[in-house]
Amino acid sequence: MSSIITLITDFGLADPYVGVMKGVMLGINPQAVIVDISHAIEPQNIHQAAFVLSTAYHFFPQGAIHVVIVDPGVGSRRRAIILKTPSAYFVAPDNGILSYVLSPAPVASFGPEPGERELSPELQAIAITNPRFWRHPVSSTFHGRDIFAPVAASLSLGTPLHEFGEVVHFLLAFSPPRPSVDAAGAIIGHIIHIDRFGNLITDVGDNDLPQDDILIEVCDRRIKGLSPSYAEGEELLALIGSDGNLEIAAKNKSAAEMLKARIGDEIRIKRR
Amino acid sequence: MSSIITLITDFGLADPYVGVMKGVMLGINPQAVIVDISHAIEPQNIHQAAFVLSTAYHFFPQGAIHVVIVDPGVGSRRRAIILKTPSAYFVAPDNGILSYVLSPAPVASFGPEPGERELSPELQAIAITNPRFWRHPVSSTFHGRDIFAPVAASLSLGTPLHEFGEVVHFLLAFSPPRPSVDAAGAIIGHIIHIDRFGNLITDVGDNDLPQDDILIEVCDRRIKGLSPSYAEGEELLALIGSDGNLEIAAKNKSAAEMLKARIGDEIRIKRR
Amino acid sequence: MSSIITLITDFGLADPYVGVMKGVMLGINPQAVIVDISHAIEPQNIHQAAFVLSTAYHFFPQGAIHVVIVDPGVGSRRRAIILKTPSAYFVAPDNGILSYVLSPAPVASFGPEPGERELSPELQAIAITNPRFWRHPVSSTFHGRDIFAPVAASLSLGTPLHEFGEVVHFLLAFSPPRPSVDAAGAIIGHIIHIDRFGNLITDVGDNDLPQDDILIEVCDRRIKGLSPSYAEGEELLALIGSDGNLEIAAKNKSAAEMLKARIGDEIRIKRR
Repeated sequence: MSSIITLITDFGLADPYVGVMKGVMLGINPQAVIVDISHAIEPQNIHQAAFVLSTAYHFFPQGAIHVVIVDPGVGSRRRAIILKTPSAYFVAPDNGILSYVLSPAPVASFGPEPGERELSPELQAIAITNPRFWRHPVSSTFHGRDIFAPVAASLSLGTPLHEFGEVVHFLLAFSPPRPSVDAAGAIIGHIIHIDRFGNLITDVGDNDLPQDDILIEVCDRRIKGLSPSYAEGEELLALIGSDGNLEIAAKNKSAAEMLKARIGDEIRIKRR
Repeated sequence: MSSIITLITDFGLADPYVGVMKGVMLGINPQAVIVDISHAIEPQNIHQAAFVLSTAYHFFPQGAIHVVIVDPGVGSRRRAIILKTPSAYFVAPDNGILSYVLSPAPVASFGPEPGERELSPELQAIAITNPRFWRHPVSSTFHGRDIFAPVAASLSLGTPLHEFGEVVHFLLAFSPPRPSVDAAGAIIGHIIHIDRFGNLITDVGDNDLPQDDILIEVCDRRIKGLSPSYAEGEELLALIGSDGNLEIAAKNKSAAEMLKARIGDEIRIKRR
Repeated sequence: MSSIITLITDFGLADPYVGVMKGVMLGINPQAVIVDISHAIEPQNIHQAAFVLSTAYHFFPQGAIHVVIVDPGVGSRRRAIILKTPSAYFVAPDNGILSYVLSPAPVASFGPEPGERELSPELQAIAITNPRFWRHPVSSTFHGRDIFAPVAASLSLGTPLHEFGEVVHFLLAFSPPRPSVDAAGAIIGHIIHIDRFGNLITDVGDNDLPQDDILIEVCDRRIKGLSPSYAEGEELLALIGSDGNLEIAAKNKSAAEMLKARIGDEIRIKRR
């Protein structure tokens, strides 16, 4: 347990929604240390939120509570859940947003629609059903304020997990995107995120790459081999980014603009 | 009293103005817990700031200090004030920005220009005139840094209200927008806020609506009745939003884009 | 020493990079008070970051630690440094980003390219070379997470400066822009920043101006004299801004839009 609560939402920072959630949490745990990870998730984009979470939660102290709200089903019968892993807690709607947390190991096929996945034994999950920890009346449009915020704050005070609701053994999850190998032996990956610098982050991990020299094809351009850093590469370069994924970058420029690249575009890696 | 200080400004987050105010406050009260509500108020838009404040401050703990700075008159003779209500403190220029705090009850007519309003007996206000609590020299362009931030921080330390200046009995306020009823008995409301999701928040409250089935006309479209949640409505739907106001939304889309709606647009509610 | 750590970066707030740095810092010093100054520095714009820092750090308590990361050379052989001044600590790449901190006094010529500058005796600097305080493995693309954040957090715990690496006597610095005087005796300044309100902040300081009445020429417009505040000036006005610099503003409008002004544009000040 920790008094650190992180937030990932699609609420933006212009509206008062995020501030209001913090007000509710501080009313329950005045010692909570609340850290914004991102509120710029595209509205209703569960896949993007899941990916952003996957690149961030490892870097927080043991026992941190991660609240992740992209919730097109708010107010309907979708479940709200707490997931406990050996290192962290997650408070979120049960809509696939925790898919990467549930699938640290590679998954063969890419299935964007979430299905039921059984929890592995080191994980525990609770359906948030006990209204004692909620703010009342509960709005049907803002469970962030009325359910997720107060539950996360109570959790940060040390309330035992089982008090929040009943144990569940299945959560909804999709298969995170993974590269495939084509008939010619080339690795086919995808751009899964474009950051503020215009760097193209792919689903190709460090371990997916051959030890040999490689040739990368992306958006009709070719890149030979990997650079050790942004500064030490060519104008257009490839390197292993800070999360261990293959990344395409441009020196002091936006690779996304240079290549007119978009999320979902293919990247092809061959032996030279 | 509380060590929670919230901020609503039109300063944005790109310039260092907000960070500088936090530096000044932490220099006075290192234990202050400072929460951003919004810094994306349109420059000089006092009405918008007043509305955003009205939807947020209820959710903070008793005694929280709300600093609200949209201040086209900075450096002129406009007053700076502290308002104390039974639940909270407000530190702001006296320019109408606290109008909703002063008018929780419905007001008949919509007057966008602020006039003097006498305080009701449960409220106390002080004109900030004692320079002892200010940062010196006082800039004529940034009272947020030199007056509002240090005064709020001193207030959070428990400094008695009367030390900051003299008691005042009138504050400037405008009448928050309210729906009217036309000759045919229809309720005529207005769109008063459009949030990041493109939801249209109106000035029509839950209590303004008839118990019967209703028909809503907005931007040449008709909506029958209220939906229980975003997920359980039609493509275009109406519901009671998280602040108790009638809201027009589109399922997984922006109602604002779909309807080309703008702040100020009328909405008409009839019995079916 | 202080537990306040401020952040200026070009990371933006959409990606999780800033949140991740906070996670790393809180893992080392759970009591750290982390304050965002700006994450909207234009990618790789070291000059802008240096200027923003110069207008902000004075307002933080004695001993605050300012982490400033705009780092096009990340992963190359550029040095990472800690600078200690009588009032504050700075943790940054050695690329000129601390130029204003090193040059509080006027510098005659404007040199945008950084060169080596000897430190004055009241300053101390350390090259960050001791990997004991880093996060491992160190990514070649995100020293913010793996070097600057953990070093700043360890510094906030009171770790002596010399433990982080060896003393250095020279840092890279450019000469901050300064106004010049032309043959006719007019002061020639430059627009060095445009804020959210469209105010044009120049490199002409309060002390650079003559005591007499002045006439200001900017973007083919003329302004007579200085106004005491935004509210008490003409539609287009000049005043001394909150940092002591000459500023061009428009009453309740954006001077930048009105004048189509851009960073780098000249401003000319003559005696009337």
